[in-house]
Amino acid sequence: MPRFVLTLRCPDRPGIVRGLASGVFSIDGNIVDSSQFSDVTTGGFFMRMEFDAPDVNGDEVHTHLAAELAEFDPELTIRPQEQRRRALVMVSKQDHCLVDLLYRTGLGELPVDIPLVVSNHETTRATVEAHGIPFVHLPVSTDTKPEAERQLRELVEEHDIDFIVLARYMQIVSDETCEALYGRIINIHHSFLPAFKGAKPYHQAFDRGVKVIGATAHYVTADLDEGPIIHQDVAHVNHAVGPDDLVVIGRDIERLVLARAVRLHAEDRVLLNGHRTVVFD
Amino acid sequence: MPRFVLTLRCPDRPGIVRGLASGVFSIDGNIVDSSQFSDVTTGGFFMRMEFDAPDVNGDEVHTHLAAELAEFDPELTIRPQEQRRRALVMVSKQDHCLVDLLYRTGLGELPVDIPLVVSNHETTRATVEAHGIPFVHLPVSTDTKPEAERQLRELVEEHDIDFIVLARYMQIVSDETCEALYGRIINIHHSFLPAFKGAKPYHQAFDRGVKVIGATAHYVTADLDEGPIIHQDVAHVNHAVGPDDLVVIGRDIERLVLARAVRLHAEDRVLLNGHRTVVFD
Amino acid sequence: MPRFVLTLRCPDRPGIVRGLASGVFSIDGNIVDSSQFSDVTTGGFFMRMEFDAPDVNGDEVHTHLAAELAEFDPELTIRPQEQRRRALVMVSKQDHCLVDLLYRTGLGELPVDIPLVVSNHETTRATVEAHGIPFVHLPVSTDTKPEAERQLRELVEEHDIDFIVLARYMQIVSDETCEALYGRIINIHHSFLPAFKGAKPYHQAFDRGVKVIGATAHYVTADLDEGPIIHQDVAHVNHAVGPDDLVVIGRDIERLVLARAVRLHAEDRVLLNGHRTVVFD
Amino acid sequence: MPRFVLTLRCPDRPGIVRGLASGVFSIDGNIVDSSQFSDVTTGGFFMRMEFDAPDVNGDEVHTHLAAELAEFDPELTIRPQEQRRRALVMVSKQDHCLVDLLYRTGLGELPVDIPLVVSNHETTRATVEAHGIPFVHLPVSTDTKPEAERQLRELVEEHDIDFIVLARYMQIVSDETCEALYGRIINIHHSFLPAFKGAKPYHQAFDRGVKVIGATAHYVTADLDEGPIIHQDVAHVNHAVGPDDLVVIGRDIERLVLARAVRLHAEDRVLLNGHRTVVFD
Repeated sequence: MPRFVLTLRCPDRPGIVRGLASGVFSIDGNIVDSSQFSDVTTGGFFMRMEFDAPDVNGDEVHTHLAAELAEFDPELTIRPQEQRRRALVMVSKQDHCLVDLLYRTGLGELPVDIPLVVSNHETTRATVEAHGIPFVHLPVSTDTKPEAERQLRELVEEHDIDFIVLARYMQIVSDETCEALYGRIINIHHSFLPAFKGAKPYHQAFDRGVKVIGATAHYVTADLDEGPIIHQDVAHVNHAVGPDDLVVIGRDIERLVLARAVRLHAEDRVLLNGHRTVVFD
Repeated sequence: MPRFVLTLRCPDRPGIVRGLASGVFSIDGNIVDSSQFSDVTTGGFFMRMEFDAPDVNGDEVHTHLAAELAEFDPELTIRPQEQRRRALVMVSKQDHCLVDLLYRTGLGELPVDIPLVVSNHETTRATVEAHGIPFVHLPVSTDTKPEAERQLRELVEEHDIDFIVLARYMQIVSDETCEALYGRIINIHHSFLPAFKGAKPYHQAFDRGVKVIGATAHYVTADLDEGPIIHQDVAHVNHAVGPDDLVVIGRDIERLVLARAVRLHAEDRVLLNGHRTVVFD
Repeated sequence: MPRFVLTLRCPDRPGIVRGLASGVFSIDGNIVDSSQFSDVTTGGFFMRMEFDAPDVNGDEVHTHLAAELAEFDPELTIRPQEQRRRALVMVSKQDHCLVDLLYRTGLGELPVDIPLVVSNHETTRATVEAHGIPFVHLPVSTDTKPEAERQLRELVEEHDIDFIVLARYMQIVSDETCEALYGRIINIHHSFLPAFKGAKPYHQAFDRGVKVIGATAHYVTADLDEGPIIHQDVAHVNHAVGPDDLVVIGRDIERLVLARAVRLHAEDRVLLNGHRTVVFD
Repeated sequence: MPRFVLTLRCPDRPGIVRGLASGVFSIDGNIVDSSQFSDVTTGGFFMRMEFDAPDVNGDEVHTHLAAELAEFDPELTIRPQEQRRRALVMVSKQDHCLVDLLYRTGLGELPVDIPLVVSNHETTRATVEAHGIPFVHLPVSTDTKPEAERQLRELVEEHDIDFIVLARYMQIVSDETCEALYGRIINIHHSFLPAFKGAKPYHQAFDRGVKVIGATAHYVTADLDEGPIIHQDVAHVNHAVGPDDLVVIGRDIERLVLARAVRLHAEDRVLLNGHRTVVFD
């Protein structure tokens, strides 16, 4: 039996779970996993469900369940699990996150398809092409930025991209692209936000003398380093660790945090809740 | 509206969630939290749910939902959330876990009632009585053990105890009591089981030269240190840490791990799954 | 043989360790522990040493070693280990850090003497006095603040206090006191600084939707929440954790972080390095 | 000025640090880092030091300092820091640890030279050769094992190998090789030893229902999974994580733990202390 992944957001009211469970039952489905969250501060209801169902395709299932739940006016996504999310990865010169994502994808750890990698530098071309993935060089200067971003959005369209991963991509994405792809661009910032926004966070961390450093995976918004946070983690450091050592230690946190955020997003486990996230893990 | 906490175990089949959701809906209830787990290796289905419902008492709700779910032959527990679980705490001479449990309970962190504390020593009497809780001295020797355990089971009966917490209680509980209260006695063992079973685990850990130590909260079974694990945590240590230092470091892990296990159990978040546990946290 | 604890700060130059080792050797001492740090960015040298030495008192040892090291112009502290640091603890209404410090001190985990506890409220009097420690109520209003701080500094003088611990003390300490006791007042802030400075950090953290929360123990300076950091730790949280839950989770981090910072300071393991710290642990 | 790394083991006695500091001073050296440990249970003294010294080569420095310390009968190693340790990496089919070690070495994170990789399978040849490192296929069967190990020891000799890294090498190393290279073979075991020795530790962990899993880097001894532990780390897991998921989660711990152990060893930070280790980090 094929498995389906469903997410649902709507105002909280009695009967949603019953409606959904009845809908799944009526197509001979079996619920194999389900998580829900009622946000008492906003009255929002959030759900993620996995169910098995025979002899139906994704569109039919969607139509059927959407009808069943019509009274709740939900935002509903339904996807056959085997139809993997498609990610476009962007990178500049540092390749530790890129290499990690490619390795995990190859191993089957990360359920994503990566149809292409885009970079503003040529540095990582060989690495990418060795994985059999097309590499697109999209240089960015102040003058060419609008045109480069236009091309980027075309690539997203053309390759049917679900989401973009900024794997240490050192350019600021324009407001226009942020809005067009809201909730669909994941960035890794090398500090435990909201501490150390902006440039050179490890140097900022060294100057402040903190005893933990961290990394944050978040959705990109026009408001730099302020987007909804998906995942964070930290490492302990001491006085003997200089800025360059922080960069080394940070690489491990960055790649773990980004890989986890990509997996969570690709498995439809992250639902936006205003400028916060609901993460069903 | 009063809130109810429900747990359910049964063989996995389509329709359980629908049945339950319909049942809650039919008493005008609203599901506010729900977690489930299907164990593919055993075919078991596990669920914990919180729902609000008006004008009904716990017994009526239980009767109603049990009828709704009869075809699934579930093990079902339903409890008004305000009716707190009753814990009997047992302790020997070391009081760090006891003091922590009493402090958290007083602060409202731990949703339990502690009607009495039982010890095989007089050491902690003043501490316990300062919290207004009766202290029962139940000395144990080889000769008196069967009688002492009989008295313990009487106290459990008499005080309507839901579960027992062994907060560094240094006596082995008899097979008879283990069986009578299966899944209702929580022990804290001062190692990350299954490493360092038996006596003096910190000394064993020192001798082995491990770089992490830990603590394990588990249900007590006749098979010593083999019961189902509820929660574990660890701390990093280095070569300079001697056995006595391990004891000090371990105290912090023990009290955190035990307090969390007690909270999980008291909130009906731990379901037995053979010799393993399902923990909905 | 009595044990001595030594700390030393001076500009880095060849020969310091030799001078110190010769000095200890010449009084028939044996070095049992030693840590050092050369700060390449500032040229500073930092050292902590424990040594055993017979038949000498602390003043004589100090005179002797200071002479031996005179050419390096060091800031030198030498203390017989058995002569414990004296801490004055300040608290407002929340007592979780206070209770923890008192319990650890009673158990011998924390090598400090606490001659008195000072509070701007009466709330914790019974708790403090139950430990046989004098409790001083020092109310603070806008009008009385200068006088209250004068009294505080008198108490510090009178009781020969080495350092002050702000164990969730909810008043801002005046610049005058900060300067008079620079590097001798430890505060626990309930966030991973520099994130969430100021009031209600857990509510700020909730609003920002972070996935980790933390606590920071730091020296108090006139610049609020900007003092040198001694220790930090964090816990992972998720979307279901509301502001009140953050407060509960935070209490565990706060008391662990503060207890560790107090132990580090009381064992002379924290040396100031500008607005950063060197922590020999 | 060239930097030297020194390690020293000897029975603890007054005067060692003085002797060493004088020795370094007499060759116009400057101590830039130093750590020591006195094991009170065995009377052993352990030290690691980094110092800068002009115009001298490693052998001269060794001769000079050995003479200075002769009375203490020390085991002394001295190495110019720029002369990197040489590691032979062994692997079977799973390549996550291998790939990680090669990537970190290429990035300059790991101060080792890897002159060759040896495997009992051909699986990883392309990966290894893509890094410009010779790959040696050394198949092992019951019959060929003695001969294969003889060849291995020859490769160690021929390539002037300092230590061997078993990066998920699934063959048991013979007692003869263990003894010949005692303290020079690092293995990664995929459990927090001493729990789950032997085969399939993740499946054992699943069966036992533990809530943490881990990995252990240790020196290999004839006594399987009993060698001195260098580093360990763990991850939290829950009931929903099956054996295959444990393998995925475990990969991250394994590569982090092994990479750290290799770095520690390559920087001469690990000193054997019986069947335990002293790790100066």
